[in-house]
Formats: sequence, structure tokens, C-alpha cells
Amino acid sequence: MNAPTGRLADSLVLPQPYLLFLGDTVEASYAKTAFGLADWAPDRCVGEMAIGGCTVTTGLARLSPADARAAGARSVVIGVANQGGVLADSWVAALIDAMEAGLDVVSGLHVRLASVPALAEAARRTGQRLIDVRTPPAGIPIGNGRKRSGKRLLTVGTDCALGKKYTALALHRAFVQRGIDADFRATGQTGIMIAGGGIPMDAVISDFEAGAAEILSPDAPDAHWDVVEGQGSIFNPAYAAVSLGLLHGSQPDVFVVCHDPARTVILGMESFAMPSVDEVIDLTIRLGSRTNPAIRCGGVSLNTSAYSAEEAEALMAAESERLGLPVADPIRGGAAFDALVDSCLA
Amino acid sequence: MNAPTGRLADSLVLPQPYLLFLGDTVEASYAKTAFGLADWAPDRCVGEMAIGGCTVTTGLARLSPADARAAGARSVVIGVANQGGVLADSWVAALIDAMEAGLDVVSGLHVRLASVPALAEAARRTGQRLIDVRTPPAGIPIGNGRKRSGKRLLTVGTDCALGKKYTALALHRAFVQRGIDADFRATGQTGIMIAGGGIPMDAVISDFEAGAAEILSPDAPDAHWDVVEGQGSIFNPAYAAVSLGLLHGSQPDVFVVCHDPARTVILGMESFAMPSVDEVIDLTIRLGSRTNPAIRCGGVSLNTSAYSAEEAEALMAAESERLGLPVADPIRGGAAFDALVDSCLA
Repeated sequence: MNAPTGRLADSLVLPQPYLLFLGDTVEASYAKTAFGLADWAPDRCVGEMAIGGCTVTTGLARLSPADARAAGARSVVIGVANQGGVLADSWVAALIDAMEAGLDVVSGLHVRLASVPALAEAARRTGQRLIDVRTPPAGIPIGNGRKRSGKRLLTVGTDCALGKKYTALALHRAFVQRGIDADFRATGQTGIMIAGGGIPMDAVISDFEAGAAEILSPDAPDAHWDVVEGQGSIFNPAYAAVSLGLLHGSQPDVFVVCHDPARTVILGMESFAMPSVDEVIDLTIRLGSRTNPAIRCGGVSLNTSAYSAEEAEALMAAESERLGLPVADPIRGGAAFDALVDSCLA
Repeated sequence: MNAPTGRLADSLVLPQPYLLFLGDTVEASYAKTAFGLADWAPDRCVGEMAIGGCTVTTGLARLSPADARAAGARSVVIGVANQGGVLADSWVAALIDAMEAGLDVVSGLHVRLASVPALAEAARRTGQRLIDVRTPPAGIPIGNGRKRSGKRLLTVGTDCALGKKYTALALHRAFVQRGIDADFRATGQTGIMIAGGGIPMDAVISDFEAGAAEILSPDAPDAHWDVVEGQGSIFNPAYAAVSLGLLHGSQPDVFVVCHDPARTVILGMESFAMPSVDEVIDLTIRLGSRTNPAIRCGGVSLNTSAYSAEEAEALMAAESERLGLPVADPIRGGAAFDALVDSCLA
């Protein structure tokens, strides 16, 4: 399945560009996916679509499905969630309209699109696809450990949900701004929609976890960088299997440790202390060197959202001094983030 | 799903005792599963069943499905494989006879039983179940990391396929012979049929890998031992995700390293050197201490099948001296194996 030039296999790629579906939402926080796409992948979005009652906008042009199709859209992405994760009847009707206009439907919701009878029926009738990005593609191979060409960066974490996706996106954007040929490789549903493809690594069968990571960053030109979105943490008692398979299969040259200094225990596991950044660096090198003996730490991404600008700056400076590595908060950016990018590319 | 007394949840238990199905095989090596069951789980087997042409026997009574059912059998186990992994038509007819006699069908083959139309139809008609032990049960939870009561031993490996299942079975048998309350916890299809239940850990979705290991060895009395069959190796570039999830979720008090001294590279991966036993001990303690800070190495199980008795003895003695730990080959048994058992229980 490996493509020879850094291109993902077709089965891992979503139909693009997108029309963003906002439903009838009146709360911007429910439309996080749509905002994430408009922010991180504006070139993949032709516009937005809503139904009666919606008061939220991404700022993109509001288009009918037919106009979106005429503008090149190939799919409508459900950019909104509601409580309970179910699809409202009013949404279903709008999505069927979109399919009749020639658009596939892409969803990151827990509910599988084909489990909604009206959508399944419309898919059969129109020939359009129902794509659940939480479902891994078929045909993932067992890992083979073969060293691939091109460069790879992986974001790793002291825990879940503290900035691994955001850090990978920010580093990828910075690489591209410096003229580097780079791809963001997505491993979770939001990232996959932003990237226009990828593999939901936590949904892959364990035996194929490393193999999935291998096909996610295929052979590429020597100067090309894949920036791979990390998942979980090798110190997380529930999710370390995902993290280690991703580490082995990604065979990163460089990793960046993502950490939230305000967090003291593992999310949802009060009896487990957070590991230190030092421990994560040490163990990631130890485990990652199995498939890439040249692995090194590029620096640390600190989630300082709980701190004032002054506190954050002092914290990052102290950590950088202590570790001898660049430490930055990609949301704050600045010289510290530039130094982190420099270090990754060094 | 945790049972309070060391009992597995019903969804993880196979219908027993078994009637062993030998098909029409003329090669004993094709009937390895049947021989393994007759050897390791004779109390779970009421007899064997064959069809015309079969020249192989486990030595158990040959019974018709109806007689087996009358003798208490609750399932017929496909104890034979053939080239290509398909089910011969003649086998299908015999399995349908067994279902009509009131037996469920248990299979460890790659082909799913329900994908054979005649079997699926017979299951609907008779109400008997088609059970593929390669398919994990539904409802596996995310891991929670909670420390469970009772004692646990896990066999780990320098690689795949070098004796982790056999070592766990031999240790479990030795524990029981010493009057210890112990269960063998199976993680692969052959082990699951021997144990009469378990979870095929390599087929579990990555996100649930540690959670699966947690429900496989539930809370038990303080003096009870679960002897857990290991999978893969944390040093195997393809399968480490399985191994780490199993290690975290099993939270073993003791582990035994299984190694084949004649193997120089990872099975099927010529460019990966085998890790040393020392490295496996060190990294297993490091990773395993996340969920059980008291984890320790009980000793080493050496697969010495490539050596003469004299060579094997010298090899084991030298390794034991070097490591300061008991080293034994459970197939050879003897005082060295007794010492390994002592060390595990110390």
C-alpha cells in the first residue's frame, strides 16, 4: 500500500474540498469541527451550509449543496455535534439534499452514518459515500519495521488531551512557511478532517497498530517532512498501546513532548501521577530507537493556557534552562516557538 | 464487567466440555489444536469425533454428537486445520449434525464460521452458537488502571513464537500441583480453547487493549494467582502495542522472560537483532511499574529445543549464573524448573 512519493494511499484520503455543515446550531462551541476546518484547512473548504435556526457562522460563504458542488466541493462534512451524538431528523434531510447534489458525507461523530436508515437508503440511491472518519480503512498491513525515506516528526505527550494535535498542526504550518515540503499526518478524527485524510489510530486493531502508522507516513523524498499527530501517552495506563504502536510505526527522527504543567494527575485517573517531561523524553528515546536509532527530542510544547503571559514566559524559560531544550507554547508563538522549529529542523 | 472472585465474565467463557472434531485428517500435525486440548485440558474434553478417512486419534473415546451431548458436551471444537484455512464441505455437514445434536461450534480458524452460509443457516435453525475464538467479545471497556486484588504472573518474550503460551501453561500446572489456587488466562486462540475462555489480545481494538487485559484477570482472593499468557514482545516492531497493553492491563507482580537462544533476529524481520534477556527484564520492569510498582522478574524460560540435553544444561546454568535468576526449560522440567516456580512464588 505504500505510495512512493509521500502520497497517502487513496483509501486514506477524504473527498475534498468540503462544504461545512453547521446544522441548526446556536452555540459556537458545538461547531468546533467546522471552526477547526475553516481555521486550519481554509483551502479545503468551499463554503458552509446551515438549516433554519442556525445562528453560527465560520465566515465562509453560505452555499446550497448544488452551488457548493458547482464550486468543486466533493463532500459535505458534519462540522457540528449535538448533545447525545445523535443526528437530528432535520440534519438528515439536509444531508440527503447534499447527497442528491452529488456530495459524499463525512462524519467524525460516534454514530455511524450508515446506521441511520434514511442516509443508508439515500447512499444506495445516489451512489454517494457515507464516510465515518472514526472507522479505519480496510487492508491495513502488519508492520514490517522497514526504514522509510524522508523525515518524520511525532508529537508525544505526558498524557492525553494537552495539545499534541495543535502542536503538530502549528509545527507543520511553520515548516511550510519556511518553504519546507511537509505533510501533516492525522491520527484522530478532527485531525483527519483537517488533513483531508489519515488513520484513526485508536480504532485500529492492536495487531495492526504499527502497520497503520507505517502506511500513514509512506516513503517520501529525503528532504520531505511528515509531521505526525501523536495519541495518548506511553505513560497512560489505558492508552499506551496506541502510543507505542504509533511511535514504532512512525519511526520519528524527531519528537516534541507536549505537556500541561498545571495538570498533576492523569486525566480521569486520580491515582496516577503525571510523568515528568524528562521521563517521557528518556522512555521515548529508549522505545523509539528500536525503529529509528537516530531519534532525538526536538523540544517541548507547553500548554500554558492556565497561566498569565508573564507566568508562562517565566515557566518556559525555566524549563528550557533546566532541560537544555527549546520550550514553547505554540498558541503563544513568538521567538520561543521559532527556536523550537529551528531545533526540530536542525 | 469485573467479577468479584476471580471468575471471568460470562462473555469470555466458552461452552464446555468439548467434543473434539478431527475432520478427515490423516496428518497428526494438522490436528495440533485437538492434541493440545487433549493434553492440557483433558477434563474439558468428553471425546473426539471424526469423519470418513480420518486416521488420527487423540486417544479419547470416539463419540457421535448425540452421545457426546448425552455425556455433557456443550460444544464441538474444530481441532484440526487444513491447508488454505477453508472448511471442507464434508466438515460442514458433520458440524451441522453436531449443532442438530445440541452442540455449539467453536473455531480458532481464520475463516469466520458465520461466513459459511450452510453453518449460518443451521445456527439460525437450531439456535446453537457459532463461536470464533479469534473474535474478541463485545463490551470491552477502556482501561482504568485500578489495582486489583490477587496475584498475577505474565510471560513476556524477547520475540514472538518462542514459548510464552507453553511456559504459562507449565507454570500454571506447577502452581496447581503445589496446591495453589490459580487460573491460566489465555490471550491467543489455542490458549483460549485450552483455558475454556479468554481474549484474543491481538484482535482487540488498540484503545481497549489495556482494558481487555484488565477484565481478563479480574479481582481475586489475595492468595489466588492468575498466570497470563504473554503475546509478542515490547521489542517487536510490529506487535509491541499488543505487548504493552497486555503488560499495563495485567499489572503483573511477577514476569518470566521467554527466550530462544538459537534465534539471532526477530522472526520475519532480518534487520532487527533479537534483544537480550537483560534488556527485556529492564524495560519490562520500567514499563510494568507504571501499573504495578512491585513488579519483579521471576526468572527465565529458555527454549532449548535446538540443543542437546548437555548443551541445554550448560546454557541454562551459565545464564542463571550471569543473571542471578533461575533459568529453566519447562519442556525439560527438572530441578531448574522447580527453582523457577519457587522464585515466582517467593
